[in-house]
Amino acid sequence: MKYGFGVDIGGTTVKIAFFDLDGKLLSKWEIPTVIENGGCRILPDIAASILQYIRENNCKQEDVIGIGVGVPGPVDDGGTVNCCHNLNWGVFNIHAALGELTGLPVKAGNDANVAALGEAWKGGANGCENMVLATFGTGVGGGIVINGQPVNGVHGAAGEIGHLTVNRYEQEPCTCGKYGCVEQYCSATGVVRLAKKHLALRDRESVLREQTPLTCKAVFDAANQKDALAMEILEQVYDYMGQFLASVCCVTDPEVVVLGGGVSRAGQPLLDGAKRYFDKYIFHASSTIRFALASLGNDAGAYGAFKLILTQYQNG
Amino acid sequence: MKYGFGVDIGGTTVKIAFFDLDGKLLSKWEIPTVIENGGCRILPDIAASILQYIRENNCKQEDVIGIGVGVPGPVDDGGTVNCCHNLNWGVFNIHAALGELTGLPVKAGNDANVAALGEAWKGGANGCENMVLATFGTGVGGGIVINGQPVNGVHGAAGEIGHLTVNRYEQEPCTCGKYGCVEQYCSATGVVRLAKKHLALRDRESVLREQTPLTCKAVFDAANQKDALAMEILEQVYDYMGQFLASVCCVTDPEVVVLGGGVSRAGQPLLDGAKRYFDKYIFHASSTIRFALASLGNDAGAYGAFKLILTQYQNG
Repeated sequence: MKYGFGVDIGGTTVKIAFFDLDGKLLSKWEIPTVIENGGCRILPDIAASILQYIRENNCKQEDVIGIGVGVPGPVDDGGTVNCCHNLNWGVFNIHAALGELTGLPVKAGNDANVAALGEAWKGGANGCENMVLATFGTGVGGGIVINGQPVNGVHGAAGEIGHLTVNRYEQEPCTCGKYGCVEQYCSATGVVRLAKKHLALRDRESVLREQTPLTCKAVFDAANQKDALAMEILEQVYDYMGQFLASVCCVTDPEVVVLGGGVSRAGQPLLDGAKRYFDKYIFHASSTIRFALASLGNDAGAYGAFKLILTQYQNG
Repeated sequence: MKYGFGVDIGGTTVKIAFFDLDGKLLSKWEIPTVIENGGCRILPDIAASILQYIRENNCKQEDVIGIGVGVPGPVDDGGTVNCCHNLNWGVFNIHAALGELTGLPVKAGNDANVAALGEAWKGGANGCENMVLATFGTGVGGGIVINGQPVNGVHGAAGEIGHLTVNRYEQEPCTCGKYGCVEQYCSATGVVRLAKKHLALRDRESVLREQTPLTCKAVFDAANQKDALAMEILEQVYDYMGQFLASVCCVTDPEVVVLGGGVSRAGQPLLDGAKRYFDKYIFHASSTIRFALASLGNDAGAYGAFKLILTQYQNG
């Protein structure tokens, strides 16, 4: 039997998972991300944790195909990390650095693209090789997979779809300084922003008027309880979401759109709502694109990271 | 020396070009596209023309690496054409069909994607392997190239970017039935539509008031002559164009955007105008994306078609 590791480096913890070559997750754990001193401990800590795991589980090093890594910043195909601000990393080659520390092959990618690859392979897209992952959390992000490969982009910014303009007439600025980004309407903070606007501008009764602080979850809960104002707010959210996803899909024409992130915990109503408006905005040739919920949660990055190294191993 | 053919099948003519392996166009000609009887003559006519060329020029068949073909409709990677309405074609495998008629390897793709590949390789993008081609003609279309490969999409609709929604508040319908598609503002007909709206709603003097019929070219000419109203109309066109291209680019993060189609004959002012608004809408990580004009004109399809078969030949 052969095995490999998938590593998802976050700003506070590093998730490490151990897989067999069928992609079965056999074991997973976390270590803290020590970002002090230019993040110089991060890779040695990961290497030590992996080598300890191999030793304690009596694996042979030659049965380990390598380590896939998701990094929260731009990484090019050759493994060059280009400034990863939340890890205090500058420019260096992570394939060489982690390879030297472990004696194992390493293949790294951007964390959002790697998560998309995970959902494509073993998650919501269930093996589809052409998909879009859109994550609606505190912000909006995403990743694009074409022919089974994550799309990185020349500047490592492919799939940075949270700041796609969906409303050219917006008056309030986004955190990025632009106006009318999808993040202003479809992130958790965007849903709350829209809800507050509705509550301020309208007289209609709503259970949301009693909520302090008002949360994204409260809006979805109220809509589930048939609160009319909450339902109208979400119609607007779904409208923007559908328009946004149609814009992304006319570029790459995927088989499946996977919705992830905290907002997507709203589940089927969100899926149905976004799809209803997607159908209004999508060019007819792509109208059969399917929608699915992300299913790997916080493990998506580890799955996708392992898939990176698995693909490299299989291609020789 | 080895050679190959690039074939661009259009609704009225088929363009055929003969290349050496460096991509130098050695000869080109056209034959009529006979679409009667389910388009059954089209491939035999192409085959006869190519075989005649090989014979008359004393080429050896073994020195011809094959034929690349651009088809005005969806084609999958295996060569299956899926209904090509303007050729009256149904579903069949063009690799097998044209291969049997010529005894040569065949590789086909969608014409818009193939034109993008041509501009990526030998045209405006000048060898860049990651680019977006946007064509502003009677309609708006495009093609996406990632890592030197045209992106087809699961339904053959990748790069069908003309119906991306740029104005969710538009009241007039697009020809596609949706509202606010980029084609309504940035195609030749879209520019004329916007110009007519400005002329009807405003009192301002303009040389455009004397133009019947009003054309897209007249609007650009008037703006070049510093006609204030024409300049304002084009500012609006560039604004939509910049927003649109920023939306496309946040998905794939290319190195270059190439602008083609009849409207792009306006040249540098159009390039500068679109880029100015692009900078307003693009996510900062992709802000160094370059803009260029398409440079192959009607030959883009033949170049890209030949590049398809060349890549297949080089990959064995």
